[in-house]
Amino acid sequence: MGMSNEAREKLSRVSVATITTALFKRGLRNQFIQDVHPLNPGLPNMVGEAFTLRYIPAREDLNPIGVFKDRAHPQRRAIEECPPDAVMVIDSRKDARAASAGSILVARLMKRGCAGIVTDGGFRDSPEIARLAIPAYHQRPASPTNLTRHQALDINVPIGCGDAPVFPGDIVVGDAEGVVVIPAHLAEEIAAEAIEMTAFEDFVTEEVLKGRSILGLYPATDPQAEHDFAAWRKAKGR
Amino acid sequence: MGMSNEAREKLSRVSVATITTALFKRGLRNQFIQDVHPLNPGLPNMVGEAFTLRYIPAREDLNPIGVFKDRAHPQRRAIEECPPDAVMVIDSRKDARAASAGSILVARLMKRGCAGIVTDGGFRDSPEIARLAIPAYHQRPASPTNLTRHQALDINVPIGCGDAPVFPGDIVVGDAEGVVVIPAHLAEEIAAEAIEMTAFEDFVTEEVLKGRSILGLYPATDPQAEHDFAAWRKAKGR
Amino acid sequence: MGMSNEAREKLSRVSVATITTALFKRGLRNQFIQDVHPLNPGLPNMVGEAFTLRYIPAREDLNPIGVFKDRAHPQRRAIEECPPDAVMVIDSRKDARAASAGSILVARLMKRGCAGIVTDGGFRDSPEIARLAIPAYHQRPASPTNLTRHQALDINVPIGCGDAPVFPGDIVVGDAEGVVVIPAHLAEEIAAEAIEMTAFEDFVTEEVLKGRSILGLYPATDPQAEHDFAAWRKAKGR
Amino acid sequence: MGMSNEAREKLSRVSVATITTALFKRGLRNQFIQDVHPLNPGLPNMVGEAFTLRYIPAREDLNPIGVFKDRAHPQRRAIEECPPDAVMVIDSRKDARAASAGSILVARLMKRGCAGIVTDGGFRDSPEIARLAIPAYHQRPASPTNLTRHQALDINVPIGCGDAPVFPGDIVVGDAEGVVVIPAHLAEEIAAEAIEMTAFEDFVTEEVLKGRSILGLYPATDPQAEHDFAAWRKAKGR
Amino acid sequence: MGMSNEAREKLSRVSVATITTALFKRGLRNQFIQDVHPLNPGLPNMVGEAFTLRYIPAREDLNPIGVFKDRAHPQRRAIEECPPDAVMVIDSRKDARAASAGSILVARLMKRGCAGIVTDGGFRDSPEIARLAIPAYHQRPASPTNLTRHQALDINVPIGCGDAPVFPGDIVVGDAEGVVVIPAHLAEEIAAEAIEMTAFEDFVTEEVLKGRSILGLYPATDPQAEHDFAAWRKAKGR
Amino acid sequence: MGMSNEAREKLSRVSVATITTALFKRGLRNQFIQDVHPLNPGLPNMVGEAFTLRYIPAREDLNPIGVFKDRAHPQRRAIEECPPDAVMVIDSRKDARAASAGSILVARLMKRGCAGIVTDGGFRDSPEIARLAIPAYHQRPASPTNLTRHQALDINVPIGCGDAPVFPGDIVVGDAEGVVVIPAHLAEEIAAEAIEMTAFEDFVTEEVLKGRSILGLYPATDPQAEHDFAAWRKAKGR
Repeated sequence: MGMSNEAREKLSRVSVATITTALFKRGLRNQFIQDVHPLNPGLPNMVGEAFTLRYIPAREDLNPIGVFKDRAHPQRRAIEECPPDAVMVIDSRKDARAASAGSILVARLMKRGCAGIVTDGGFRDSPEIARLAIPAYHQRPASPTNLTRHQALDINVPIGCGDAPVFPGDIVVGDAEGVVVIPAHLAEEIAAEAIEMTAFEDFVTEEVLKGRSILGLYPATDPQAEHDFAAWRKAKGR
Repeated sequence: MGMSNEAREKLSRVSVATITTALFKRGLRNQFIQDVHPLNPGLPNMVGEAFTLRYIPAREDLNPIGVFKDRAHPQRRAIEECPPDAVMVIDSRKDARAASAGSILVARLMKRGCAGIVTDGGFRDSPEIARLAIPAYHQRPASPTNLTRHQALDINVPIGCGDAPVFPGDIVVGDAEGVVVIPAHLAEEIAAEAIEMTAFEDFVTEEVLKGRSILGLYPATDPQAEHDFAAWRKAKGR
Repeated sequence: MGMSNEAREKLSRVSVATITTALFKRGLRNQFIQDVHPLNPGLPNMVGEAFTLRYIPAREDLNPIGVFKDRAHPQRRAIEECPPDAVMVIDSRKDARAASAGSILVARLMKRGCAGIVTDGGFRDSPEIARLAIPAYHQRPASPTNLTRHQALDINVPIGCGDAPVFPGDIVVGDAEGVVVIPAHLAEEIAAEAIEMTAFEDFVTEEVLKGRSILGLYPATDPQAEHDFAAWRKAKGR
Repeated sequence: MGMSNEAREKLSRVSVATITTALFKRGLRNQFIQDVHPLNPGLPNMVGEAFTLRYIPAREDLNPIGVFKDRAHPQRRAIEECPPDAVMVIDSRKDARAASAGSILVARLMKRGCAGIVTDGGFRDSPEIARLAIPAYHQRPASPTNLTRHQALDINVPIGCGDAPVFPGDIVVGDAEGVVVIPAHLAEEIAAEAIEMTAFEDFVTEEVLKGRSILGLYPATDPQAEHDFAAWRKAKGR
Repeated sequence: MGMSNEAREKLSRVSVATITTALFKRGLRNQFIQDVHPLNPGLPNMVGEAFTLRYIPAREDLNPIGVFKDRAHPQRRAIEECPPDAVMVIDSRKDARAASAGSILVARLMKRGCAGIVTDGGFRDSPEIARLAIPAYHQRPASPTNLTRHQALDINVPIGCGDAPVFPGDIVVGDAEGVVVIPAHLAEEIAAEAIEMTAFEDFVTEEVLKGRSILGLYPATDPQAEHDFAAWRKAKGR
Repeated sequence: MGMSNEAREKLSRVSVATITTALFKRGLRNQFIQDVHPLNPGLPNMVGEAFTLRYIPAREDLNPIGVFKDRAHPQRRAIEECPPDAVMVIDSRKDARAASAGSILVARLMKRGCAGIVTDGGFRDSPEIARLAIPAYHQRPASPTNLTRHQALDINVPIGCGDAPVFPGDIVVGDAEGVVVIPAHLAEEIAAEAIEMTAFEDFVTEEVLKGRSILGLYPATDPQAEHDFAAWRKAKGR
């Protein structure tokens, strides 16, 4: 099971925007995680299977500072259990008034070989996270400790994140723009299609920057455009 | 286990506002379900143990109209499994763009003897629900079918509803104003305290309507107020 | 052109919720006008072709109190030109800080035989409008005069209203719950289907109120349910 | 100082919508208190001078339940000091997650002869307040005790309420639709103008309900309309 | 018609903030496009006449992926028809859940010599757009293809953008802070006034950075300040 | 009175996130100013006593451009009166549609030796402010002049800012992530505790970056972790 290395590699070379279009063609309109952005936009694409963490609103008596002493606390356990190459996706109910996690946990995730972390809330220690070499996406910085608003509840159940449905094992891709969730069963075909679309978009971009009109070119309704694209692919070896 | 009949009876005679104050005294500030109101405000208090239903954002391919043909669909199953006297509480992620449920399901819940239903989203068929004799609370009407935005996922797990944490078995109380969630282990003492507070508030209200100042009376820092309250209780048998 | 009398009559007897389900089956998920409600919920269904009015944000120098002296002012002209039996739908950009219209204009629309009025902003003179016998839907009351925030711009162009697309000639249906927009070319088939769905829902409601489980009944996956429904239709003549 | 009895009487007979138009003519566009509505819409107009109360966010250590034992607590003091015939206006920072006040305080205000109460947050005990004979306006019900989110700070300073500026002594008018704030120095002239405008609007409404077009009538650009209005006033003695 | 080269040049040397003050003096308070920011803040000012594009919510059946094959599709047509030196302004109803446009279209606009592009929604391919030498302003990145939420409808009609009214031919100015819309008939006088204001602000800034108090200086109520400013202008040749 | 130099120095070396945790341990959950960020994130920590400025919504007749000619205007006076080393905190009611202040005033504050400036609204001239060496925090840029929406009212009264309570004299600390408000009486002990916590967090970060698990380490429930931390402190001299 899981995504092939080939698909993973392809998804590391295409944009989130291109993937959303491939999903749109299949009737999936809500797979983009709304209103999150990367803390460290200079990194390569984030690609990995979703490993989820679900938060509910914190009840004060259940969330004193001492809870983290419990090694079985779901937040801490999730950090140690998230598989290498997986992306941790946190359902923070779009509430960025308190942190979803901080730099120490994100650093641990990075050291464990995980592929990235996403929350629809906010991270604390955001300047430190921005300097780590693991892609991290949030809504806005949130200094107050997690316990102020969030109680970690479940590990690896289906969740919502930024109004997108996320099932464990879905393929999560992030770039400098945002994050998209590809249903697991579609990952291979979306990867293949997105690579093709990217070749065409790269060709079109070159043509447009040379001064060509988009009419007939994008989409390629003019046979000349099809022809030119074929020549371009040959020349570029793509 | 579960709430005593005595506690249930007491909670049916106090206001949600009074209960929130008793919870506040214990450090619990977020047990009021924000931004929901009753469709049928003339009914007696809703009191029951929480039975929860969790929704995530709908993925289009998983939520065609045919899914309800599956008898194991969590939404339909929840309606048939919610225990009599319990309150169904739905985590709709505060999204009222599509329905959490409609009048047929709510009617079935009523016939099964359930105590009420709450969503932080919206109900469809709201005019019909408003005429049923089961308390129902939502944010605003939402005609589009459930599947448009929501996928029922889990039954009876801890959830958030209107920014309040809700654990299965918590005691849910609703009146014409709103809904509050009492942690299960506090139900008996909150019920007892709220009855006492209600007696005092009723006494104060009577005095105020007779023209008495609130200073010294509410709270009763003036010994005369304490004295008068004792006399009032005796006279009223409360 | 336009809707048949038969379709109009059918649509006056079904709920907005039922219509949204029929549209959902055809892949249309955004035809419900979000976050509007009727000022006068006791009236019969509103059914009519959409006649639209588009507002943009008001520029102060173009919107002094004197503009209404111009008989060609689009707001006033729209009120006089909206065809009888049509529904005026106003794109107020979901901004209810100033009025979309007031009771005098709505009364004029009523006298001219129009079928209703909808704005995704607010009406002023809302208590007076609530007493008129023409269905009117808005977000919340808005006393400030239209000119404070809105400039009427266009008559009968495609618009957005409450996040739904509305094309002139689309069929607009409102009930005590809300408003839905049926694409013109689907009106006849949606009307026919909704009548059938309503018969089934009425049957199911009766059964549920008698104590029957929804499993196998709603949807009717149990052949007995199909059989009972057929018998019910015969008995009811529906 | 203060408003004349004549102005008060006039303002009790005009609508908030009409007053906002008179203010608009003077360049005042933001005097309508946004997003509040009456709990008891059947009462006569609320008219009175503004007496203000300012809240800031509650700091937990300063707001234990015991603070109300202090007779000098600004919230309690405000209730006892608001002058008869004045309207208490509360700046709750548009935060309805906790109560601005409850039924006992509102009842006391009523007994003291105050003219009404307005908050841009919410009241608790809203069903009880809805039964009192004092106009009360809020955003939505809020059961949690005041101390949960609000600390009463200042009495009778200039505030914002629902995005409108409110200065102590301004004239506050409320009807079944909403609340408007008239700068103190304009009260007499606005009252006079609004009475005139109301006469004209009543005339227009009658004409429109008889079937007359609004073109030339509203506004009265047609000399016939002027003429008919003069005749109407004479006949009605207005 | 249109703006003079002199005005264009002046507007390229003043800030959006200064322009909003000049507009405020003329009673125009809503000409700043709210909540948009530049993707490429290092570029010179954007100055150009508004060329508008209006979107409505997408209806699914009208917006399959194939629509762009139509050369007359308003979005694609707008990109080819926007005059050189003009600014394309898109009314996306403040909805950034799907893209208003992507990097290929923005690149084409750049190559055609247009002055910039503004949406109150979001762009896709935002990292690529950030590297183009054409000013682009949006609310936040939005990867999903345009068709997911938006249908391009009208070209060069008056629109709202970020709560500001925009008429075709208005002068649109953007800097590293934001975007302002100058009514066409005011462009020359605003340009002239803003240049003067900028000289004074530059003088004041220098003085303040030398340690001078703002009292009497800003505004220049102290005759010495007027005097010093005159000397400064002379010295600077401004 | 006031904070010791030692506490100020300590607070300049710890993060806002760490301080929020120390406050959380004392039951203070709302001291983080929500949704503001630094314009100039590369500066050292901002630390100073709060000096507050309160705005209310602008009434048009009271806020013509000429008001700033009055040297006693609260906004201008505040800029000249804010004590050196203090942080000016502005209650802009979270409204960023018009500016809280601009670069000239912020520059003056810097020259006067003030420690920083915070608004829960927005600044104009934000690119210029971003180049000043005084920490400044806001929600988002806001070009329109202050008078468009805000009237400066009060100096140095308790206020709300970004949903946090701020009392004059409270200690305000800002870093590249955000701003926290420490109640004055807690400043010394929070500073001391935060320094200790920071040492431990630095130790943990080093260990985690070496590959160590967080279980037993963070928090240090494993005696080995305590031991290692003691050794680390010794080695580092902290």
